[in-house]
Amino acid sequence: MVGAVETVITPAMVNGTVEILAVVAKPLPPVVAQNGSPIEAEGEGDAKAKKNREIVLGKNVHITCLPVTEPEANDELTGEKEAYIASVLARYQNTLINRTKHHLGYPYNLDFDYGALTQLQRFSINNLGDPFIESNYGVHSRQFEVGVLDWFARLWEIEKNEYWGYITNCGTEGNLHGILVGREMLPDGILYASRESHYSVFKAARMYRMECVKVDTLVSGEINCADFKIKLLANKDKPAIINVNIGTTVKGAVDDLDLVIQTLEKSGFSRDRFYIHCDGALFGLMMPFVKRARKVSFKKPIGSVSASGHKFIGCPMPCGVQITRIEHINALSSNVEYLASRDTTIMGSRNGHAPIFLWYTLNKKGYKGFQKEVQKCLKNAIYLKDCLRKAGISAMLNELSSTVVFERPKDEEFVRRWQLACEGNIAHVVVMPNVTMEKLDAFLNELIEKRSTWYEDGSIAPPPCIEAEIGKENCACALHKC
Amino acid sequence: MVGAVETVITPAMVNGTVEILAVVAKPLPPVVAQNGSPIEAEGEGDAKAKKNREIVLGKNVHITCLPVTEPEANDELTGEKEAYIASVLARYQNTLINRTKHHLGYPYNLDFDYGALTQLQRFSINNLGDPFIESNYGVHSRQFEVGVLDWFARLWEIEKNEYWGYITNCGTEGNLHGILVGREMLPDGILYASRESHYSVFKAARMYRMECVKVDTLVSGEINCADFKIKLLANKDKPAIINVNIGTTVKGAVDDLDLVIQTLEKSGFSRDRFYIHCDGALFGLMMPFVKRARKVSFKKPIGSVSASGHKFIGCPMPCGVQITRIEHINALSSNVEYLASRDTTIMGSRNGHAPIFLWYTLNKKGYKGFQKEVQKCLKNAIYLKDCLRKAGISAMLNELSSTVVFERPKDEEFVRRWQLACEGNIAHVVVMPNVTMEKLDAFLNELIEKRSTWYEDGSIAPPPCIEAEIGKENCACALHKC
Repeated sequence: MVGAVETVITPAMVNGTVEILAVVAKPLPPVVAQNGSPIEAEGEGDAKAKKNREIVLGKNVHITCLPVTEPEANDELTGEKEAYIASVLARYQNTLINRTKHHLGYPYNLDFDYGALTQLQRFSINNLGDPFIESNYGVHSRQFEVGVLDWFARLWEIEKNEYWGYITNCGTEGNLHGILVGREMLPDGILYASRESHYSVFKAARMYRMECVKVDTLVSGEINCADFKIKLLANKDKPAIINVNIGTTVKGAVDDLDLVIQTLEKSGFSRDRFYIHCDGALFGLMMPFVKRARKVSFKKPIGSVSASGHKFIGCPMPCGVQITRIEHINALSSNVEYLASRDTTIMGSRNGHAPIFLWYTLNKKGYKGFQKEVQKCLKNAIYLKDCLRKAGISAMLNELSSTVVFERPKDEEFVRRWQLACEGNIAHVVVMPNVTMEKLDAFLNELIEKRSTWYEDGSIAPPPCIEAEIGKENCACALHKC
Repeated sequence: MVGAVETVITPAMVNGTVEILAVVAKPLPPVVAQNGSPIEAEGEGDAKAKKNREIVLGKNVHITCLPVTEPEANDELTGEKEAYIASVLARYQNTLINRTKHHLGYPYNLDFDYGALTQLQRFSINNLGDPFIESNYGVHSRQFEVGVLDWFARLWEIEKNEYWGYITNCGTEGNLHGILVGREMLPDGILYASRESHYSVFKAARMYRMECVKVDTLVSGEINCADFKIKLLANKDKPAIINVNIGTTVKGAVDDLDLVIQTLEKSGFSRDRFYIHCDGALFGLMMPFVKRARKVSFKKPIGSVSASGHKFIGCPMPCGVQITRIEHINALSSNVEYLASRDTTIMGSRNGHAPIFLWYTLNKKGYKGFQKEVQKCLKNAIYLKDCLRKAGISAMLNELSSTVVFERPKDEEFVRRWQLACEGNIAHVVVMPNVTMEKLDAFLNELIEKRSTWYEDGSIAPPPCIEAEIGKENCACALHKC
């Protein structure tokens, strides 16, 4: 799962027309973007333009831009520039408050209070390089970082002296690192990942020049292990590097880790011929708090786990955690021929504030606090799904997931207002700790009220059948509702 | 240049002995680490241990760690946890103040005041994906990001509608992106980089499975174009991807971009057979403000330029800027076969606070402000070099550079106290805007005083000859001083 619904390539619309400053690639299906991507530029909804929707690659359209202006010589006297900056920031803050209030589609916990850490903003805190190796740069926060890593090591059941890890910039960096470690362990390994894996997994394959095999998924979004087996057997001569999703981006589906391991073993892959990276961007942190969930644990033959810090925990900026086995890092480092040998992280300079934010929340909430929040999220997700179904709207909720998938609202303005992430005919809400029942009620009331107007005109097609996406039993279209 | 002196692999020392929890690779020369890395864990200086110095790879030694502890049930009543966290943070803040005060070795401007932005810390600001394409996630800062990018585009002389770029997490991400763009443009291209290039360049070659040829350097640290030519001619059948350093990590040397281009042309490489990435982590931003400097400009046949935001500008967390030509991004995107096609940045989720910090400083200081600061830095760097030479200490300062290279102080405690970056027998101070003449005087006085004691005992070897590193004319060893 993870970095979650992050890619977006949409046309830039300026004054209702699609402005193309660059090469235009293959057209997108109407009102659809892969990866649950939203579709259009803010404030634009021209129906004609929608029809002309195309992917514009490498676009550079200055839809919204706050230009940097050169200060005047007398600025300090007049205070004009100061006043301008202050007014921009005040307006921006209002936008942020409003946008934070109406947010449901991304798995970010927007409910945090880091007031106690405000004073640290005046320091340039940088954990450059390996977290376990002191740098001469003294303004760092390694002591917090290692504390946080230990916590995650305990969560995923690996001994302190057996793991290696670091705080990343986001879920993508965790996946890039995990897959790189896998490739260095098994240089001619093939990367296997389900179609519903996060796009960063496929990006890694491309960056690293790895052969990549996509595996089919079940309706739930989980990897289809029958198909996985067929593909493994077709490539028996090469080792396997597998990305296992602990919560897919769109449907919040959790791949069956035990079944994946079983499939590998049954297909004749011994433990030295496979490497498993668990992409646990969101659920990697939630699952351990659900008693009946399959465990993500280093007691199983997995190589690495990554999770995001700005999602379930909540953080002002994106960040993540990557944990792997220490012997893999040794292999990674000793394999290197040149300078890179002392280089264990993907990035060089690393944000030293992020570990402090995480450390603070982990200390304040603890296991028990997270457990309570996970339970609340799962309960509220069930509530949302039930209300949608009662209102006759197609909806699906995977077991142990807080991602409610439902019929894509017809009105793009509504989608934008609630910042829903969409893919094809489906949208989703990810119920995070900041999503209260009251917020869900407000959303539901608005959806139900607006929806009744979307389909009242007979000239418009009825709500689509989304059996293919969420299964017959969850579909409430004209054909399936009875 | 840049991410600058960031890698460090040193032994972890616990109670004065080298603790090795992992595989030990090849031994390091005494008191030396590549990449200007410091050598030991804070607070340790055992001479015996120093002799046993070795690289420990994939180490996981919990030298300093603030553990996360589970809150007690009655924490809210007693307030104990709250008090514990507050005391940790207060102590930490004192350390940061002290460490910020005594800092000279890394090219970070620690002098900034972002008090006006404090209120934004409570928002989860995320510019996921491409900066020019709106995401449905509303809590972003693209309007600031594009404003900052426009400013850099102007600085490096490329039209608004001809560039593409984004705010990165650090200099390394810029290099990873620039070299990836180069590889996608010229898939079988060989990567050429001088030996003194930043380690992230060689990391990129490894990650991307590219052939990489190291080019010799001059004593100044600049790329040796005679050697470059020989290596180009030996590989004439393959296109060339070149990393040009706008300020190397250790010596602050600026590769001669014009001569590199000339060498390519003279060696028979037409413009469609080479791609130049300029690693301008520090000087990419300073050079344009020095009138007599060779220009980094997109009017020349270069493909991309990256710079760091936390260095000369100053920022609480690492960040950077990457600018490339829009047509390269089109090529990058349309080449892709699978999902990754809509993916233009290396990371997925992206820190939305960093662009606001940069926007704020650019607006406040402007071209004129930076120009003034660059001049001050160059002037202070000359002052430092002159004082060192007057005191009989070997020292070098490249023209147009603010990185003063000098004889490595004998005492590791002193190196650590001033957070100097070292490599072999040399150390450096990077004069940033926060490095005042008073600070330099304090440093010089302490160095000169301590140094007189390091060499007074006849049993210790005299100050080393560093002719090889900085040239005969800059060396003040017994042999060269007269």
